[in-house]
Amino acid sequence: MTETIQLAQKLIQIDSVTPNDKGCQKIIADYLSPLDFKIENLKFGDVDNLWARRGTESPCFAFAGHTDVVPTGPETAWTHPPFSAHIEGDMMFGRGTADMKSSIACFMVASKRFVHNYPNHKGSIAYLITSDEEGPAVDGTVKVVETLEARNEKIDYCLVGEPSSSKKLCDSIKNGRRGSLSGHLTVKGIQGHIAYPELADNPIHNVAPALEQLVQVQWDHGNEYFPPTSFQISNINGGTGATNVIPGDVVIQFNFRFSTEHSPESLQESVHAILDHHNLEYTLDWNLSGLPFITPAEGELIQAISKASKAQLGYEPELSTGGGTSDGRFIAPTGAQVIELGPLNATIHKIDEQVSVSDLNQLTELYYQTLVNLLAE
Amino acid sequence: MTETIQLAQKLIQIDSVTPNDKGCQKIIADYLSPLDFKIENLKFGDVDNLWARRGTESPCFAFAGHTDVVPTGPETAWTHPPFSAHIEGDMMFGRGTADMKSSIACFMVASKRFVHNYPNHKGSIAYLITSDEEGPAVDGTVKVVETLEARNEKIDYCLVGEPSSSKKLCDSIKNGRRGSLSGHLTVKGIQGHIAYPELADNPIHNVAPALEQLVQVQWDHGNEYFPPTSFQISNINGGTGATNVIPGDVVIQFNFRFSTEHSPESLQESVHAILDHHNLEYTLDWNLSGLPFITPAEGELIQAISKASKAQLGYEPELSTGGGTSDGRFIAPTGAQVIELGPLNATIHKIDEQVSVSDLNQLTELYYQTLVNLLAE
Repeated sequence: MTETIQLAQKLIQIDSVTPNDKGCQKIIADYLSPLDFKIENLKFGDVDNLWARRGTESPCFAFAGHTDVVPTGPETAWTHPPFSAHIEGDMMFGRGTADMKSSIACFMVASKRFVHNYPNHKGSIAYLITSDEEGPAVDGTVKVVETLEARNEKIDYCLVGEPSSSKKLCDSIKNGRRGSLSGHLTVKGIQGHIAYPELADNPIHNVAPALEQLVQVQWDHGNEYFPPTSFQISNINGGTGATNVIPGDVVIQFNFRFSTEHSPESLQESVHAILDHHNLEYTLDWNLSGLPFITPAEGELIQAISKASKAQLGYEPELSTGGGTSDGRFIAPTGAQVIELGPLNATIHKIDEQVSVSDLNQLTELYYQTLVNLLAE
Repeated sequence: MTETIQLAQKLIQIDSVTPNDKGCQKIIADYLSPLDFKIENLKFGDVDNLWARRGTESPCFAFAGHTDVVPTGPETAWTHPPFSAHIEGDMMFGRGTADMKSSIACFMVASKRFVHNYPNHKGSIAYLITSDEEGPAVDGTVKVVETLEARNEKIDYCLVGEPSSSKKLCDSIKNGRRGSLSGHLTVKGIQGHIAYPELADNPIHNVAPALEQLVQVQWDHGNEYFPPTSFQISNINGGTGATNVIPGDVVIQFNFRFSTEHSPESLQESVHAILDHHNLEYTLDWNLSGLPFITPAEGELIQAISKASKAQLGYEPELSTGGGTSDGRFIAPTGAQVIELGPLNATIHKIDEQVSVSDLNQLTELYYQTLVNLLAE
């Protein structure tokens, strides 16, 4: 069994459900300390964060990840106990195997080998590890980034170990994320008896033409890096429960995943224009949870990864901006090139989350070669 | 204080919330028995019903009403205790004052006087009183009507004592009711993460164009007796509560109040055509709670009431088919002429339900003159 797999098992066997680190970061720090990493434990609220850096020069190459995992769901539903890190054939089972303790182990081994082979490498190597990526994400990466910015410490290349691969290792890397903008809409009417509609004003009826319009809009066509902006209603609720009462309001929650063809302001304007066109009486609260960001294909980080993948696996990854958000959204605004590269994501957050052992050994090698391509002296 | 008011207070002071009669019908029966009414107590399930008839000849003039009342709501919110039948100025306060114990008292006094003055009147006088008009209405009037039909006992004129008046006594009488048809619609989609809409199928989005169409349809223009058919959505619910999940289905409840220009079948066909046009995957359960019915203006019962009103109040009532359902819907299909005439309905089902004492004395006189116009020898 390789050191990567041994380390991954050690981390996975700790039940560090968000926001509990439960000692995972100490394992990482104890591993890095003898390699001349300077260790900083940055605790904000209940959240443990680790910033470890070897060297002070730029460019700073940081690996970003998290030691927290989502809850297991019913443990009896698992083929193997979720914190056993049991290996059967080529697969290792457990919560956090894919998302994302294994990636941390891969980078630990890769960076150790790199430091051994290139003790006088260019720039710096760093770890930004949080224990609250899966939770509110308020006291995690965002606070560490604020701390670094306050002292003018800059990340140039950020490799996020999130599981980016789809069908096979490194077939896809994320070089950006769509923005996420949510709306909480309350359309008001006048409650009344269903037999006397002339005395009431049905908000469900009033909003129906606006909804029809909102779901038909082609917001944009995306661009080189982004798929088209997507609008989705997650919840709609109106009614007293009684079948003979016209309700006084209807509440609609929706979300945009938006490309760089739109700004939050332009989307907000469009929605208000549609609602106002239909003369609705409403309140609408907005919540912006992330701006879109992009790391262009010609950047050094993508080049380094693609070169490593081509040499080792025979193919280059596709660039993608699809899927959900990650802590990359907090790091990208600092100007860093941010890429997500990790194992297959098919089983994340599910029962029987698992990862291929041979993929992890390959991933260690990919991380190592990426370091070589960027920082070898 | 008149006998009408004394009797009304006696009935109102009994807290006969649906389906509990609590002795109200015994008061009525004990009053009618010495007047040569034949008393039948027809209990079905938990529901007390009273059928009392004087004479065996036709035409049979029946007064229909109910002794049950809706709950009071918070009693402390009432200006006077809801079962006190307290009189202040011209107003008597209490649950059931308007809906509809007072009407029963009016007709009791009217029929007593009529029997006294016309002991050998034409036809018969009857009472059809239930204690479950405000509830499921399964073991009430509908069962009494079935019992009467089984023995070929026929009601010719039915005066329902529901509060039909709007601004002043007898400004409006109901000579029919719209039909009521309800639908429970479930539109199906595929649940998924909001960041991956291509892997989900949003049922709220799918149904939006159909809803827009349903709320825009002009179903008909009504006719001489009926306002246009009305479509109203009472409830819409879709969503898991989470803001990042596309729901798997959306549930919509709606109701038609429909004129005789439509049948339940024609409405169902129209709704299915719209849903099918939009290629929705759905289930739709229908519930028909009443067919529309009409008592034509030229019928003897309306003529008798209008003549009485003109003579006593100086105006004739307007005919209306608006508003909610009443037990008249169960009696009309037997071929009876059915009219609702009672006090003002402004406070029914509300806190501080109340009725004008002088209106009740006028209503007693109206009921008496209607009997005279139809059944005096």
